[in-house]
Order: sequence, then C-alpha cells, then structure tokens
Amino acid sequence: MTTLGLGGPVGVVGLGLIGGSLGLDLQSLGVEVRGLTHRPRTAERALARGLVTRASTDPAVLADCALVVLALPLDRLLDPDPALVEALPPRAVITDVGSVKAPVLACWHRRVPRFVASHPMAGTAAAGVEAGQRELFRGRPWVATPQADTDPAALALVRRLAEAVGAHWLECSAPAHDRAVALISHLPVLVSAALLLAAERGAAAGAPDGELSALVRALASSGFADTTRVGGGNPELGALMARCNRRAVIEALSHYRHALAGLEAALAADDGVALLATLEHCRSLRPEFL
Amino acid sequence: MTTLGLGGPVGVVGLGLIGGSLGLDLQSLGVEVRGLTHRPRTAERALARGLVTRASTDPAVLADCALVVLALPLDRLLDPDPALVEALPPRAVITDVGSVKAPVLACWHRRVPRFVASHPMAGTAAAGVEAGQRELFRGRPWVATPQADTDPAALALVRRLAEAVGAHWLECSAPAHDRAVALISHLPVLVSAALLLAAERGAAAGAPDGELSALVRALASSGFADTTRVGGGNPELGALMARCNRRAVIEALSHYRHALAGLEAALAADDGVALLATLEHCRSLRPEFL
Repeated sequence: MTTLGLGGPVGVVGLGLIGGSLGLDLQSLGVEVRGLTHRPRTAERALARGLVTRASTDPAVLADCALVVLALPLDRLLDPDPALVEALPPRAVITDVGSVKAPVLACWHRRVPRFVASHPMAGTAAAGVEAGQRELFRGRPWVATPQADTDPAALALVRRLAEAVGAHWLECSAPAHDRAVALISHLPVLVSAALLLAAERGAAAGAPDGELSALVRALASSGFADTTRVGGGNPELGALMARCNRRAVIEALSHYRHALAGLEAALAADDGVALLATLEHCRSLRPEFL
Repeated sequence: MTTLGLGGPVGVVGLGLIGGSLGLDLQSLGVEVRGLTHRPRTAERALARGLVTRASTDPAVLADCALVVLALPLDRLLDPDPALVEALPPRAVITDVGSVKAPVLACWHRRVPRFVASHPMAGTAAAGVEAGQRELFRGRPWVATPQADTDPAALALVRRLAEAVGAHWLECSAPAHDRAVALISHLPVLVSAALLLAAERGAAAGAPDGELSALVRALASSGFADTTRVGGGNPELGALMARCNRRAVIEALSHYRHALAGLEAALAADDGVALLATLEHCRSLRPEFL
C-alpha cells in the first residue's frame, strides 16, 4: 500500500456513484480505502466490487484516516449523523462532494477544524453501490471553495486527491460556485422538465379525441430526447439540488424568463431579423461553454 | 432500372440533406432519379456522389417524372419559382418534405392537381449537397397530411416511396401535425436557445471581474450540452420553422411558460413535496415520448 502523499488511509463515507468510483480509483492506485456505509449489505457489496479495502457500518472504521471524503447525498450531508461527526479523526482533513457549497460550508465549517468544501463535477444517471466506476473523474472539473481561514495544507491534500484520480482542479468562492452551477446544472433540469410538462399539456389541450396526444408521442425524436434528458432524470437529486441552491436557482430562472420572453417577442412580432440574429448568437455562444 | 411501382423516374428538387439522402436510397434501390438544383456546381457534385441519375439546373429535367419530391427549404417551398411550377409534369404526383404543413397546403394545393403534403422526420445537423446519406429515413416517421380532396392514388404513391426507404408512414390532419411539431420540435429550439442566453446573461450579471463568466464556461458539462444542443443549432432553420408555424409555436410557448411557472412557484415556496412530485411525474412522462 502507498499513500500517494495523502498521509494515510482515505476514508469514504457513502459508497454510491461518487464514493464508490473514488474508492475504485484510489484502490487501483494502491491507496488503502476505508468505507463507511449505513447498511451491512452495502458494505459487503462494496468489498466484493473492490470499491474499498475495508468496509463497515461502524464509524470507528475511519479512526486512522488522514483524509475523509463525505460522499453523501446533500440532505444527509447537511444534517449529519452526530455519530459520524463524533467519529471523524480530529486531525484528519475532511472534504465533501456536494453540488452546492455555501450551505455545506455553513454546516461543516464550525463542526470540524480542517474542512475543505469541494465538488467533483462528474456524474452518470446511475446511483447506489453498483454505480461506482473507474476513471469517472478523469478530465472532469473538481472545484474547491476555500474560505479565508481554510487550512492551506488541508486544501493541498484534497487537491492531491483530486489530481490523483485525474480531475482538473479549480478554486473559486462558494457563492460563485453556487451561482455557476445554478446556471449550468440546476436551471437546465427545470427548463428541461418544463418542456416535458408543456408537451403533455399542449398535447392534451389539442384534441379531445387524443389524436394530438398520440401524434406528439409518435413524433418526438432526438431533439426532444436531448432537450428533456436532464428534466426526466433522477427527481430526488433534481429537487434536492434546486432546494439547496434556491436563491441562485431563482435568480437563474429570472434570467431565463427574460431570455425566453425576448425570443417570444420577436416571434410574436414576426420579426425574422431579430429572431435569426438571436439564434445566430446562440449558435456562436454554445461552443464557449462546451 | 426499376420503378418500385412508382410509375417512372422520381424527380427530386433540391439536393441537400433530405433530397440527397432520398436520391441515394432510391438509386441504391435501382430507381432512376432526376435532380433539379439551382447551381451547376451542385448538379456536378450530386452526380459525382451518386445522389441522382441525372442532374440539371433546367426544370425540363423533370419532364417524364411520375413523382416529384420538393425537397426545398421552407422559404423557397412557400414562394416557389414560377419556372419550377410550370415545369412540373401535369399528371405527376407532387409531394414536399416541409416541416410545417398548413402553409404548404395553402400554397401548393391550388397550384398542382395531385399534391400530397408530407414530412419525413429525419435530420442531422448537416446541410448541403455533401450532407445526403444512406438510410437516413430508416425507422423514422414520414407523416402525410391529406385533405378531403387529396387523390387517394397520389397518397398511396407517396406512401410507397416512404416505405421503400424504410420510413414509418403516418397520416394526420395538417393542423394536428403543425401543433405536434410545435411542441416536440420547434418549442425545444426556443427553450434550448433561451438557456444559452440565460447562462450568458447570468454569468455576466454575477461578477464584474469575470470570475463567474469564466467559471460558468469551465463547468458546463453533458447536461448543459444536451439541453442546449438544438438551441445552438442551425439558426436559419430554427427561425424559419418557428415563423412558418408561428401560431402553434406561440401556443406551445404559453403551455411552456405555465409549466415553468409551476416549477418556480414550488421552488419559491420551498415546497419540496410539490417539486419532487412534479419531477417524478416528468421522469415517468419522458419514456412515453421516446
């Protein structure tokens, strides 16, 4: 076993997609990984899948970890089990993987001395102990949101972890992170979900005999599929992210409404020049983001 | 050469993605294809690519066709060249491939006796004489919108063409078609374009120092990519489709605004139960369409 300069075994709390993938990559790098989970069955499967070196439902499994990654869903992260907090080694660096950072800092900053808020931006539709996969983080952003009093050595340790699994390290303020993910991750879920609802509603309004309803379902193709993918995704995750980042998401929605109203006004006025110019601008904008 | 029961050579007017792909498939089935295009260079390339058997810029090339497919962009289809209309063989069946049907019928129904309005729903981002590809229509819907006085033999001939290239034949009224495509094809373009505009606007509003703007661009990932794909696509096509189907698109936008407002209200009230229930409904809705 090596430690890759991480100072000792790495603890992973929660063995779903993010925790499990991290465990797999660290194990393949030769790092000892201690997994903590709620259910004995998950601990067994995590061991069988090689996600962790040791797995337990007892927080004492984290005892000699130098670094602990809280890979919990946002709701459990923001309302942590006191036994977990109690069991975290006092000198260990603690980080999380939550997709909203200001509430995580508000909750954890005062609870543990060496806390680093971070967010590896990698995901698939999968969840649970079977979801973890190798190389999930390779080439993906891993954003940290240090505060003025964040321990620089702790921050450097989390960066070492992120870079060990191939992620691209970024640092910014927690409010900037939360506003950015509101725009590019949480807003798209609502925009996309509303399209599904509008198609349902428009199809039902169209024809009492159900002709339009059947037609809409028969004709939807790749454009509709792509635009509705995130809106038809994991509802628990979507609702949780939006609620935990409520203020920024509501602000993002106001920008969105304004943008959509501009397109609608051009269409309502049959202003082909304005509509074309706006869509040309959109075509040129997209590569800036991707 | 065979005719597949199509009664003679097939004329294709416009050799872009749809016209070129149709020509390729018909040629590979052994059907003689006559291509009409504006530019000599396009005619040359169409022949070189094997899209057509003969190609010309002279409408007389259509003289002995039994079936002519108008594969023109909507604007040219709705304002046709008088020389083209003049050159269409009087007994030939004429069909089109336009993505909006009521205006096409309004324009063509009185111009030619055996007109069948139709819409093969196949597309890629590609356009022009290099875009045509084999098997573009296989498994895709090909919708016809016959009227009470549409010649049944003409309708049957277009159906034979569609099924010869592997498309799935559907018939409905023109208004139902136009409302359906407004919901599942034209609305997604505007919804998706507005997301790009909102991300730009929100990022610029966030931080005068450009931190948020750079961050938003760095963090956008697959969810943002999928949701913005059609909004960042061909602006001419998007603007033309929306304008030609203006009334139905404006109606679709009103359903959309209502749906988005419902999601926003749940979020603003921090009503987690309602938000989760709505997103769960969206998850169950999506497979109905896809």
